[in-house]
Amino acid sequence: VIDSTEEFPIQRITEEDKSDTVDKVVRELPLTIILNDEELVTLLCSPIDLKYLALGFLYSEGLLKGKDEIKKILVDEARGVVRFQTEGDKGDLRAFKRLITSGCGRGASFYSAVDIQNQAKIDSQITISSSEVFDLVNQFQHRSKVFKATGGVHSAALSDGNKILIFAEDIGRHNAIDKIFGQCLLEDIPLEERLILTSGRISSEILLKVAKRKIPIIISKSAPTNLAIKLAGDLGITLIGFARGRRMNVYTNVWRVKA
Amino acid sequence: VIDSTEEFPIQRITEEDKSDTVDKVVRELPLTIILNDEELVTLLCSPIDLKYLALGFLYSEGLLKGKDEIKKILVDEARGVVRFQTEGDKGDLRAFKRLITSGCGRGASFYSAVDIQNQAKIDSQITISSSEVFDLVNQFQHRSKVFKATGGVHSAALSDGNKILIFAEDIGRHNAIDKIFGQCLLEDIPLEERLILTSGRISSEILLKVAKRKIPIIISKSAPTNLAIKLAGDLGITLIGFARGRRMNVYTNVWRVKA
Repeated sequence: VIDSTEEFPIQRITEEDKSDTVDKVVRELPLTIILNDEELVTLLCSPIDLKYLALGFLYSEGLLKGKDEIKKILVDEARGVVRFQTEGDKGDLRAFKRLITSGCGRGASFYSAVDIQNQAKIDSQITISSSEVFDLVNQFQHRSKVFKATGGVHSAALSDGNKILIFAEDIGRHNAIDKIFGQCLLEDIPLEERLILTSGRISSEILLKVAKRKIPIIISKSAPTNLAIKLAGDLGITLIGFARGRRMNVYTNVWRVKA
Repeated sequence: VIDSTEEFPIQRITEEDKSDTVDKVVRELPLTIILNDEELVTLLCSPIDLKYLALGFLYSEGLLKGKDEIKKILVDEARGVVRFQTEGDKGDLRAFKRLITSGCGRGASFYSAVDIQNQAKIDSQITISSSEVFDLVNQFQHRSKVFKATGGVHSAALSDGNKILIFAEDIGRHNAIDKIFGQCLLEDIPLEERLILTSGRISSEILLKVAKRKIPIIISKSAPTNLAIKLAGDLGITLIGFARGRRMNVYTNVWRVKA
């Protein structure tokens, strides 16, 4: 297993002082995903949970419908390669490549009116109390080991409203969430009535990624964008931002948060 | 001009209290760049300085060598489109599209050994004192208007070591830096012996973007990755991270920072 941090000699300078010391820095790995012998994409990521990341990515991008399709997964950690063989041909991947291209950070293409119309409204009746949210955020903040060491990664988690079920870290906001969903897919972990927590900003891309899995509540330590709020409103998702300490902003579908 | 923020009604919940209020949220615009009548890419960005962003992006991606090549730039803010007409044909853009694709956040492709070998070492003899760095970081932090209002954007700046010459904000780290370089290109602002400040993490992509413009010093409020540190070391760039208040970490080429 590749360590997710690396130490470097640095000079730490303050107003009063200058000292030679060692700093723990987050590792960045270029991970190439190869689908049926065709090179699909290279993601920059943290070198942990590569199989989950690659799976989650393929699923998020609509290239994989389920686990049954997969004949073989080969992970080469040292070279930064994950190879998939699937049942049946995936056809011409160039169309897909253009799709990510126009996302550039994966998925401005999602904005297409068609795609949003195809996105069914989430009708889950799940609710959560505000103190449950505060407790979850507290658990979430205590989990991030790499961030504490390096200040350089994002984290994401899946929760049932009481505890954190799955936790992932990555230098990319998108990657951390894809790792969660990839693990769920591989290990048959159900996503119904589950919540997603994220350390990162909620942009429209993040919101749609979560909406595709029918997640009714997304909680972030950071800010949402205007498009994410509009989509969350339209799709019936409860969007909570700035969840820090024991306070939060509820942007949409506030009925799911009880006093 | 499109406002870069938008107000939303929210519920703010704390341990003791629940109140209906209004929150100012950062706007996210899908911006499509069309080069010689061909749709190139859609970026998610903040709706300010679109011309600078599009120019900086094309230049960063190697699709534009200089201002003289441009015959016409048309910005349609309302529709989120920037159109470029250039002298001569740009050839088949599919190769380029594949290039960004494999970046997915623009530029893992930059990792190619060839590209890094082609990157000349920066031999600028410029130095800066630690108190100049602290003062610059202080100026930089005071400049960010949108961040203060929304908590949702990154900022970047060009400096001569004493003052901030150009300042840009965007929801994307890459975009904020591209806006700086785009403005420099359009307005013939020289980049020799200049510094870049950024609020965001320094990944290998950011480092290479700055290296291509021969910037000798990059200063970030946040963390660098291991690959960025290695590249900065190899390319002769002084990389400063965690520059906050009156302290900083110098990761590479520390000789440029005087006491």
